[in-house]
Amino acid sequence: MPHPRTLRRTNPITIALVAILTVGFLIFVFSSDEDSSPARLRDAASNVLSPPSLPFKKSKSESKQSPPPVVHYHMNKLTTSSDPVGNRETVLILTPLARFYQEYWDNLLKLTYPHELISLGFIVPKGREGNAATAALQAQVSKTQSGPEKKRFASVTILRQDTESPLENQSESERHKLENQKVRRAAMSKARNSLLFTTMGPTTSWVLWLDSDIIETPPTLIQDLASHDKPIIVPNCFQRYYDEETKKMDVRPYDFNSWIDSQAAQQLASQMGNDDILLEGYHDMPTYRSLMAYMVDKGSDNPHAEVQLDGVGGTALLVKAEVHRDGAMFPPFAFYHLIETEGFAKMASRLGWKSWGLPNYFVYHYNE
Amino acid sequence: MPHPRTLRRTNPITIALVAILTVGFLIFVFSSDEDSSPARLRDAASNVLSPPSLPFKKSKSESKQSPPPVVHYHMNKLTTSSDPVGNRETVLILTPLARFYQEYWDNLLKLTYPHELISLGFIVPKGREGNAATAALQAQVSKTQSGPEKKRFASVTILRQDTESPLENQSESERHKLENQKVRRAAMSKARNSLLFTTMGPTTSWVLWLDSDIIETPPTLIQDLASHDKPIIVPNCFQRYYDEETKKMDVRPYDFNSWIDSQAAQQLASQMGNDDILLEGYHDMPTYRSLMAYMVDKGSDNPHAEVQLDGVGGTALLVKAEVHRDGAMFPPFAFYHLIETEGFAKMASRLGWKSWGLPNYFVYHYNE
Repeated sequence: MPHPRTLRRTNPITIALVAILTVGFLIFVFSSDEDSSPARLRDAASNVLSPPSLPFKKSKSESKQSPPPVVHYHMNKLTTSSDPVGNRETVLILTPLARFYQEYWDNLLKLTYPHELISLGFIVPKGREGNAATAALQAQVSKTQSGPEKKRFASVTILRQDTESPLENQSESERHKLENQKVRRAAMSKARNSLLFTTMGPTTSWVLWLDSDIIETPPTLIQDLASHDKPIIVPNCFQRYYDEETKKMDVRPYDFNSWIDSQAAQQLASQMGNDDILLEGYHDMPTYRSLMAYMVDKGSDNPHAEVQLDGVGGTALLVKAEVHRDGAMFPPFAFYHLIETEGFAKMASRLGWKSWGLPNYFVYHYNE
Repeated sequence: MPHPRTLRRTNPITIALVAILTVGFLIFVFSSDEDSSPARLRDAASNVLSPPSLPFKKSKSESKQSPPPVVHYHMNKLTTSSDPVGNRETVLILTPLARFYQEYWDNLLKLTYPHELISLGFIVPKGREGNAATAALQAQVSKTQSGPEKKRFASVTILRQDTESPLENQSESERHKLENQKVRRAAMSKARNSLLFTTMGPTTSWVLWLDSDIIETPPTLIQDLASHDKPIIVPNCFQRYYDEETKKMDVRPYDFNSWIDSQAAQQLASQMGNDDILLEGYHDMPTYRSLMAYMVDKGSDNPHAEVQLDGVGGTALLVKAEVHRDGAMFPPFAFYHLIETEGFAKMASRLGWKSWGLPNYFVYHYNE
């Protein structure tokens, strides 16, 4: 997949632009102007808010007699528990952002989890649409981070890729075509991995994957999911739509990547080539897996019913940071004939971590 | 591998202790004292040197009228090139530290790559030996980071695991036993992944894996390896020893994990169970791979001869950060019947990144 390397490239890594951070503030970066030279970089790095991976420079006020301070963090009480607010556990919300939906941001702002414990990370593809999404995101971040203190997030990181989204100009129906899915999901896997590897820090307790087209969740999403104290937990991703027949708004399943495996799927996989992948929700690939999308118990008012899963979707997905730290990432290649979030669940299970779903707990996807 | 989770754990993640960082300084943490409470955490986080993943708190001097600063980093000129010093590329040196060797630290200090561009990351197992290693490391870090500015590193992060090294009390010969290798290398993989996922930041250009028992390298190690501009490149890891016969110091190969694959190894793998792994350097598992250890061209004075590899060792290993960002990690499970650094090379190749070795370029392993 990578382009042939030249001896000297100006944008070698996936990440073309890195937007960062500061304690409690934002961000950003977004230009190819000439002052982004190494010299400028060095100056930026002398800022006390620089992340530790930037070069060290003594600040001007610091005298030879007073060496830089030593800061101690006692992290051995860092927890990942069913009471994350009480234990002040930090949550890193990661979003691959192809398009910016205001409803996504508004929903994020409504989350009742203490925002000071939430860091946000975004990765945006190169290209016109990515530029528009970045601009819109940046405007909202600036507004929020200079607004009421209670609404501000601990930090925001925005990464720009140096590759375009492979199917950027395709319609949703085109994107869902079987033959396009492997390419699309491999690219999505790499984006997720870049975002994860770059933003997860030593103090991260939880990672919440939240797609940019998830526009409605309960405000207590993080607390609700974390209360189950599972390594990996996924709500049911539905979509609101207008039913032409009944002339009413209704809901329907959207994400079919959360499932319990089947003999039929195993059988299909065993006959596949090494690089082939199984995909869910396609009629010409009948897996007979048990899909969480169809496990809704309409007679139940218990949103906390649990089911153990073998594959998970990533539209909304809460993961204990230790699962990722052990090495669980999103395979951009066929891994046991699975890819991306489904491959992630398989990889996590190889590492001893189980996945769970909440069939009666809903989040809602944008309806294009 | 993970322990059964209780509803509420105090040390849930791999990392029990996190030592961090500051711009240009260090460090640390190491105690289970009572003041490491959430409240204490919040106070620590208000320090301007806090990493962005810590909770936001306004500093006392900041008035309501002046919102927190916005810092812009223009990173689109971040490179990974054959001239890393000229391009001021940052290098993250990662070391799983079981024992502390003064020679390792002394060698590190002698690296001529600008130290202000180098961040260090360590992960140390739990237990008595880990405690001793941590204490020794901490002492050296403190000394270096308060010493001459030119010798100081950009930052130092020390992670403590909440698990012991699986074979901590075994001798070297015991550790190398075939049946112990899988357990040992799976644990090592997880340690490497934890370290990598936790310390790699948006400004990291290169990752140099350097084992704690590598006690001698050319001072220009980073520049030399980077000059090849390869995604993954590994020097030849040898060991100095006293030859009883000739009564002289001599050298011999130490690391056999850098190799070109063979038909015989493929054949062996095809007959293995899913979870079985191929290991190199064992007589009862003849792989007939071409080992870089035996490719030294004694008649050549060119240390820069290159060879393409299918497996790599990790005692010293330079990786472009983008390779890791794409998702390449150290599989703690059998991946194409490979594990740890050899599995990493395979995973990278699945992602389109090739591995290279320098048979005539040497680093030296401690001789126990």
